[in-house]
Amino acid sequence: MIIIGERINGMFKDIAKAIRDKDSAVIQDWARKQEQNGARYLDINVGPGAADPVAAMKWLVEVTQEVTDLPLCLDSTKYDAIEAGLKICKRPAMINSVPAEAPKMERVFSMAAEYGAEVICLAMNEEGIPKDAESRVALAMELVATADAFGVPIDSLYIDPLVLPCNVAQDHGPEVLETLRQIKLISDPPPKTVVGLSNVSQGTKNRELINRTFAVMAMANGLDAAIADACDDELMAAVATARILLNMDIYCDSYIDVFKKG
Amino acid sequence: MIIIGERINGMFKDIAKAIRDKDSAVIQDWARKQEQNGARYLDINVGPGAADPVAAMKWLVEVTQEVTDLPLCLDSTKYDAIEAGLKICKRPAMINSVPAEAPKMERVFSMAAEYGAEVICLAMNEEGIPKDAESRVALAMELVATADAFGVPIDSLYIDPLVLPCNVAQDHGPEVLETLRQIKLISDPPPKTVVGLSNVSQGTKNRELINRTFAVMAMANGLDAAIADACDDELMAAVATARILLNMDIYCDSYIDVFKKG
Repeated sequence: MIIIGERINGMFKDIAKAIRDKDSAVIQDWARKQEQNGARYLDINVGPGAADPVAAMKWLVEVTQEVTDLPLCLDSTKYDAIEAGLKICKRPAMINSVPAEAPKMERVFSMAAEYGAEVICLAMNEEGIPKDAESRVALAMELVATADAFGVPIDSLYIDPLVLPCNVAQDHGPEVLETLRQIKLISDPPPKTVVGLSNVSQGTKNRELINRTFAVMAMANGLDAAIADACDDELMAAVATARILLNMDIYCDSYIDVFKKG
Repeated sequence: MIIIGERINGMFKDIAKAIRDKDSAVIQDWARKQEQNGARYLDINVGPGAADPVAAMKWLVEVTQEVTDLPLCLDSTKYDAIEAGLKICKRPAMINSVPAEAPKMERVFSMAAEYGAEVICLAMNEEGIPKDAESRVALAMELVATADAFGVPIDSLYIDPLVLPCNVAQDHGPEVLETLRQIKLISDPPPKTVVGLSNVSQGTKNRELINRTFAVMAMANGLDAAIADACDDELMAAVATARILLNMDIYCDSYIDVFKKG
């Protein structure tokens, strides 16, 4: 599993302030820190309060690319902001995200085909997030079929089964794990999978423990990527260990350091 | 998943000494400590050096039962020692263990039927431990069929797929996880599953991290029990968290304490 660093997000106060003040040092500091700790992509989200989301996205992409070669994950519900970012990304980016809704799929998959971008596809539609794995997988299949029709390669799709906080939607946990497993049976090659890890612990007392435990359980069910806190050392150690136990990296005593360095 | 406390084992020097000196306080102290930290069974093993394994097993069972009502898991390759223990156990015990070898299955399953004991069944035979999941499952099926012929109920069997140290047999890890999952398809009701958790980290640098990571991965694949260090607080917290995420216990902020108290 790879980590998409979650920290450059206007939801965090320091990032919102940096966007307002055009203070690139704050953004670049987080970009470097996340990369040094093992992130393989960086999520870029202007946050809910940005006055001009298009301008903010362009600025975030520019200042981030000045200090890192990591690919970016452009995270917005405003597709104009995503497209503005795609135009200036130096490397193929990831679009975060599209639900199984026809007009949104048309816009996003068209952009993905044009810019060679990967896409995070959400297992939800106009009716919301279904509870059971079967319905989530059905939405994933709709997303995969539509992407295919637009010429987006299946292995550039990351299906997000959408994990909810375990203190309010506990019965979703096993369904999400089962969804991850079944998605690998949709096609050959199968789509990839991703979760927004921190969602699982929203509002709980033991956030980091719950995050890393769910990450490891999801990896045992085939998870490919997580949008997560790359600066959570215990999470990164747990992920590195799960990769060893899944025989994805070769064991050596210093495997945690090796994982972080890629 | 439940924890079978591993600590009353003559392989540990303090236990070997306590057996030699008939020092019941050492044994009883470990029995209490493991129970207080959340163990649901206690493994009882006289160790490789016991002069009289039958007498040592009887003494260990007696002194342990003086301080705890937990069921015991009688752990020996010497079946006379196990039978001596079974005769004096106040509650139905677990026999640890039997491989898929005809004479041993005959002896163990006969005892299990007579004493109403559960049995840990090892996915190995005279030829050793197979690498792939399919061969492990085939041995499990042989064990289940033989137990059934002796009148031992299938849901009193715990299949142990046999996990090996990840630094020397790394390719076994994913096979063990797959075995755990497939065992649940053998019959309805299916047999239970168990692992000797500490084996996975034998000889590694990050033993506790590897143990708790593998425990959580195995739980995501249906593991029912682990012979493990109940006094490893981080392991117990990870197990409690995985139970929450699998929707096996109801979430509350103090779920770790609740898990330990049973």
